Amino acid sequence: MNTNPANGAVVQTSNNLKARRIALDTHDEPVIITRRDCAVCRSEGFSAHARIQLEAGGNQVIATLYQIDSELLGLDEAALSESAWRLLQIEEGDLIHLRHPQPLQSLGNLRGRIYGQRFSRDSLRAILNDVAAGRYADIHLAMLLTIMATRSLDDEELIYLTEAMIEVGERLRWPRTPIADKHCVGGLPGNRTTPLVVAIVAASGLWMPKTSSRAITSPAGTADTMETLTRVDLPLAEMRRVVERENGCLVWGGSVGLSPVDDVLIRVARVMDLDAEAQLVASVLSKKIAAGSSHLVLDLPVGPTAKVRAQADGQALATRLEAVARAFGLETRILLTDGQQPVGNGIGPALEARDILAVLEQAPEAPADLRTRSLELAGALLELCDGAEAGHGVSKAGEALDSGAALAKLIAICEAQGRFSRPSLARHRVSVQATRSGRVEAFDNRRLSRLAKLAGAPAAACAGVDLHVHLGDPVEAGQPIYTIHAESVGELNYAREFAGSNGDIVNIASDHGGPA
Amino acid sequence: MNTNPANGAVVQTSNNLKARRIALDTHDEPVIITRRDCAVCRSEGFSAHARIQLEAGGNQVIATLYQIDSELLGLDEAALSESAWRLLQIEEGDLIHLRHPQPLQSLGNLRGRIYGQRFSRDSLRAILNDVAAGRYADIHLAMLLTIMATRSLDDEELIYLTEAMIEVGERLRWPRTPIADKHCVGGLPGNRTTPLVVAIVAASGLWMPKTSSRAITSPAGTADTMETLTRVDLPLAEMRRVVERENGCLVWGGSVGLSPVDDVLIRVARVMDLDAEAQLVASVLSKKIAAGSSHLVLDLPVGPTAKVRAQADGQALATRLEAVARAFGLETRILLTDGQQPVGNGIGPALEARDILAVLEQAPEAPADLRTRSLELAGALLELCDGAEAGHGVSKAGEALDSGAALAKLIAICEAQGRFSRPSLARHRVSVQATRSGRVEAFDNRRLSRLAKLAGAPAAACAGVDLHVHLGDPVEAGQPIYTIHAESVGELNYAREFAGSNGDIVNIASDHGGPA
Repeated sequence: MNTNPANGAVVQTSNNLKARRIALDTHDEPVIITRRDCAVCRSEGFSAHARIQLEAGGNQVIATLYQIDSELLGLDEAALSESAWRLLQIEEGDLIHLRHPQPLQSLGNLRGRIYGQRFSRDSLRAILNDVAAGRYADIHLAMLLTIMATRSLDDEELIYLTEAMIEVGERLRWPRTPIADKHCVGGLPGNRTTPLVVAIVAASGLWMPKTSSRAITSPAGTADTMETLTRVDLPLAEMRRVVERENGCLVWGGSVGLSPVDDVLIRVARVMDLDAEAQLVASVLSKKIAAGSSHLVLDLPVGPTAKVRAQADGQALATRLEAVARAFGLETRILLTDGQQPVGNGIGPALEARDILAVLEQAPEAPADLRTRSLELAGALLELCDGAEAGHGVSKAGEALDSGAALAKLIAICEAQGRFSRPSLARHRVSVQATRSGRVEAFDNRRLSRLAKLAGAPAAACAGVDLHVHLGDPVEAGQPIYTIHAESVGELNYAREFAGSNGDIVNIASDHGGPA
Repeated sequence: MNTNPANGAVVQTSNNLKARRIALDTHDEPVIITRRDCAVCRSEGFSAHARIQLEAGGNQVIATLYQIDSELLGLDEAALSESAWRLLQIEEGDLIHLRHPQPLQSLGNLRGRIYGQRFSRDSLRAILNDVAAGRYADIHLAMLLTIMATRSLDDEELIYLTEAMIEVGERLRWPRTPIADKHCVGGLPGNRTTPLVVAIVAASGLWMPKTSSRAITSPAGTADTMETLTRVDLPLAEMRRVVERENGCLVWGGSVGLSPVDDVLIRVARVMDLDAEAQLVASVLSKKIAAGSSHLVLDLPVGPTAKVRAQADGQALATRLEAVARAFGLETRILLTDGQQPVGNGIGPALEARDILAVLEQAPEAPADLRTRSLELAGALLELCDGAEAGHGVSKAGEALDSGAALAKLIAICEAQGRFSRPSLARHRVSVQATRSGRVEAFDNRRLSRLAKLAGAPAAACAGVDLHVHLGDPVEAGQPIYTIHAESVGELNYAREFAGSNGDIVNIASDHGGPA
């Protein structure tokens, strides 16, 4: 130390404001609104859109500041968004202390990575700790995700990232082994095999305490679909109780606090409409490892309009996943599957749940492809866990399904989670017809997902697309090829407009020649 | 087209709400607050934090939606932030139409670039058009800046980016040539030569219509500094009038609408604490070209803690700048200058303005280094513009300064811009003393900037750091080596705290040995 600030009385200002609840929903962004002319803002030099550290009763949060110039608030009051209210755990009228946040040291690690430095274990820990504590603004989160997508992490960095994502959250331990798990990297509309696999594997006596995500860029995640059948936001203790009773569960991972940073990253990735490979690998594996899984089957659909487009890309991703899984002692089998067309008929939470029940109930309208894929995945998992001899997994899975044991298991799991109810159907529907006769030659999975999202999925659980044809089916002009389901007229109109200007989402080849 | 949506009456909902002004300052982020249970939100499926397109009287803006569950707003009302109010140009009670924004096609270009595709001229145009129209959220802007920083643009992409940045804004034409300009890439605290160069060059009879930025990551930009002396937010017509009368001006570029996207990017880059090379090159050159400049001198300070750290980096950046400038026919001379220590004594808008006046007035306390640098840059510009013979520029610049012509010119320009006033000094100050005797061996420019920013610069114009020593100066223990200036007690305390734990910002080597 060469220098030293001159001594002088430290002037203390109280920097406190009274919390006022105005029931302001900003989703997960903490927001504080004060008078522009309040003493705290004047003495601290706070201006609109600044990030401010709020403290109350031992809790802290960094919030975005907005200011008003009107009498809606008193000079000693601060209105807080519900998200800030929750994080601070305050009551109306409690005092909130405002201060400048500390500079974020971990941003230096982000900048270093932009300019080509590697992430160390410590730097990723520091970054994820700041993310978990809510210290990163959306801008910083977007920076992190873009860096990871643009300049790939190497295997070691990816292992550190996965480890850091596990460390900032809860970690489950189970009293027995193996603990079975499965995951699909997505990109294939309607590919909702997880509830079927859990029902089959749990019915076969293995433990499968499944935690799932909500959709990132797709019209439905497994948690969204299951929510149409049962409660999925179970706290950890309840989830344990369900597993102990039924061998399995199907809950939303966010509610048990596994890899909580992942949910923050997912929200930003959704706005970016981006799936970064590193985020994908760390996201998938951190949740499995934090969930205490020992054996994992991964479904990796490959197709020209799936998330993974070519066999070589699928192999490369599988290699990365296997390398990281191995570092954590997780036994993994990765299946590259056919990703040329949607699986089942429904695309969207409730429509997919309907298909799942049809398969379990062996209904005549049950989609055969959804049944086949689920049996393959469940079979691979039964074999990986040593519950079935090599080559006999699929037939063992088929027995659980055909005997009705899997159906009974799914209903039992749903009931243990709080309720079992059949999904409802959307109020607004419009069917889309073939304008020519011929044969179904291709599906554009990406635009089908977009169509289902425009219709309102996943936020509107009953919204989505119901397909009436599959690859190779003959169709006649005027025949309905899919139906759009929506919960609001506005959304139905958006989707209908998109369908009208994207007639080749389902491509029909003329019998007399090639595709139109 | 193979398919077609079935016909059906298009159901129209009005989707209108009455605008209510609550004087909500969100800086430049458009925000709309509605009741969660209003008809529009219910029919359109809008939820909190959604991005909503607002339309009124032919104007459009995309805003962030927050929702309240209280009676503070009526079911038919929407409260708008001042930023949205300005962009829509509405009156209290006007009807606002709400709708889902169109999907941003240009995001596909961003994602493509992440995965290694090049930007085309059209894709950069589309991106910058969307940015200029306010369609990009902070997350998308952070994506764009991070991509450009992480995977450098090639020369052609950089030319397209610069061109697109020019195209989305105003472009000035001047009735004569040459039009002189200068710029410093920054990173050196206190290096405020521009007002001196403009005063000298304009006093020498050349036209120098200078537009400057506000600070990005530094404690002061030229526009911030000039604002302590005069008005800088002149509309274009007024700026022209000043130049026609005085040969030069010193205004904020943002107010004349040159390269408006740059200001948006600057705000986000400031939160990221990042200067991306591509953004830097396109930002600098687009503003110069849009400003109608024909001849440009660039000051590129190089030093271990300056923005450009090594001579080789400076050469590389100079090469990029020259390549892009050449493509637009801009005559450019780049000077790599000494960036080892701050220039002048003051760091922060008002303190730097004080130094500038001292140099012009040839006051005994005028910093000699600020004078020398300004003469070198002005001399190079006089030579480049053919206003001086090669090798005689500096002496010609010295004449303009020593004769008092430059001082008279700066005052005349300020008065033509609306006022000339001397900068005030901050209310709160604390001096920092050397804790040992020795010689000043090094300055940490980055931490000095941070110190000035913690003290409140540039938002608090009088805040900053006033240096009392320079490299090589002998100091004695207890001698004040700098003074922190602040406008609020809170900020003074933050800066003082930072100074206390960063005693080596100014490194003093013992006379008996090396640095401590």
